[in-house]
Amino acid sequence: MSKLKVAIIGYGNIGKYSLEAVEAAPDMECVGVVRRNGSAEGFPELASYKVVSDIRDLGPVDVAILATPSRKVRENAEKYLSLGINTVDSFDIHTEICNLRNALAPVAKAHGAVSIISAGWDPGSDSVVRALVEGLAPKGVTYTNFGPGRSMGHSVAVKAIPGVRDALSMTIPVGTGIHRRMVYVELEPGADFATVAAAIKTDPYFAHDETHVQQVESIDALNDVGHGVNLVRKGVSGKTHNQLFEFDMKINNPALTGQVLVLAARAAARQNPGCYTMIEIPVIDYLAGDREELIRRLV
Amino acid sequence: MSKLKVAIIGYGNIGKYSLEAVEAAPDMECVGVVRRNGSAEGFPELASYKVVSDIRDLGPVDVAILATPSRKVRENAEKYLSLGINTVDSFDIHTEICNLRNALAPVAKAHGAVSIISAGWDPGSDSVVRALVEGLAPKGVTYTNFGPGRSMGHSVAVKAIPGVRDALSMTIPVGTGIHRRMVYVELEPGADFATVAAAIKTDPYFAHDETHVQQVESIDALNDVGHGVNLVRKGVSGKTHNQLFEFDMKINNPALTGQVLVLAARAAARQNPGCYTMIEIPVIDYLAGDREELIRRLV
Repeated sequence: MSKLKVAIIGYGNIGKYSLEAVEAAPDMECVGVVRRNGSAEGFPELASYKVVSDIRDLGPVDVAILATPSRKVRENAEKYLSLGINTVDSFDIHTEICNLRNALAPVAKAHGAVSIISAGWDPGSDSVVRALVEGLAPKGVTYTNFGPGRSMGHSVAVKAIPGVRDALSMTIPVGTGIHRRMVYVELEPGADFATVAAAIKTDPYFAHDETHVQQVESIDALNDVGHGVNLVRKGVSGKTHNQLFEFDMKINNPALTGQVLVLAARAAARQNPGCYTMIEIPVIDYLAGDREELIRRLV
Repeated sequence: MSKLKVAIIGYGNIGKYSLEAVEAAPDMECVGVVRRNGSAEGFPELASYKVVSDIRDLGPVDVAILATPSRKVRENAEKYLSLGINTVDSFDIHTEICNLRNALAPVAKAHGAVSIISAGWDPGSDSVVRALVEGLAPKGVTYTNFGPGRSMGHSVAVKAIPGVRDALSMTIPVGTGIHRRMVYVELEPGADFATVAAAIKTDPYFAHDETHVQQVESIDALNDVGHGVNLVRKGVSGKTHNQLFEFDMKINNPALTGQVLVLAARAAARQNPGCYTMIEIPVIDYLAGDREELIRRLV
């Protein structure tokens, strides 16, 4: 069986972990990495890979893993889909997912390619669990509780405040979908902590959540990419109330995102041309190995 | 939109809860119940339904929910598939699932019908979670822990022992896929408890598990259809170890089985002819409602 030819687009945190997941997958090979500057400099682990600025310099590619920021996904996906290359991404702006799907579907279909969008852990694998437990108890309430772990969006919002050199906002779950924000700031010389703390607490990102701000010497010393989810549904199966479902995970955040992107890259090769979210794909299509053997072992 | 026409085959515990789930589904109608004796006697809730002994007396049927014992599934599925009627079942003999799938697939395809097998909670919805978490951490170990709840198979094995009038075997999870068996027996007059207890402990169903036997006045007084699952996977995403995933549920057992059968009945109408297990079907296909709205809300 020939291996799936995977290109990785972008080589930040998600790109690195995606490469590890491709290397660990028995049915895939990485045919190269696409970076704006086309250089592997500073990344010894890329020594054995082609690093290019244009994917067409890699030869045949089955699927491109878009390890780029969410706001770059549409442009990149359109570019690669137009070349007939499948794409997968971990686009995470929940409110824009349907628009992205509607925009990419005609491009994918026109070029006989497949795009799987929002294939991270939330949106992504959590979405599969959310959809499943909603089916198991069609009436009821689901709460998705995040953390403890860093929120990129909230951290960036804090860094934009004058006087802040670096910042980290930790999301702490307090249950029922409510989150506490633990904000750590490293200040510029001369900045006033009380002023910064007040600015954070009135920022729209934080104004509605319980927020605590602490000054630290070094944000780097707090660096930890662990994260978690606790997804709870209580509801009604048929006419029977009080059915309880709970999904929990404690994970390395970019490692899981890289792994999910690899699952989606595999599944993309198994779908008809079009654009899909993860809940639109059979779970078995994400897995390597013989289909009957998987059914025997997992069902 | 016309509603899916559902027939329920068999009216034991699972049949009753399946009917409730059909009644609660916005996109389905029950067109009747098939019972061997064709009678609704003793079931006032069936007063408004046709109860027949032959499904052909119900008029058009889209899908038959086989609420019959596992050993009857193949025969019933073949009969209804041959009439071009989709079938769903909660066949639960894990080792026989692939054989059943291979047997029903050609029948389903020959008659343009769909069969979804082993659509209960385990096998069934648990299988979807097991497959998903194996994808999220392809190397690692999964433990499925059952209970506390009744084991039908174990209870039946105890009832077969001479001197036992009625019995209940509770499955108690002790972690890592190991289970304790709490066995309750109601004895025939004159039966010797010590003899019965010894026979249970040496029975192949119990010989390898920690088993405790207690005599009670009434098994009926212990009747509770609650059950539970704790499914745990610890493994490696890409090359990153110690990724932890856990799925927990505390549920009314037949109510959840009935609900899952209804999800499968809905999904059957959306697949190409053939025979499927639940992991081979997109999760979104199990859900009622507009597809784009589901994606917007759940992804």
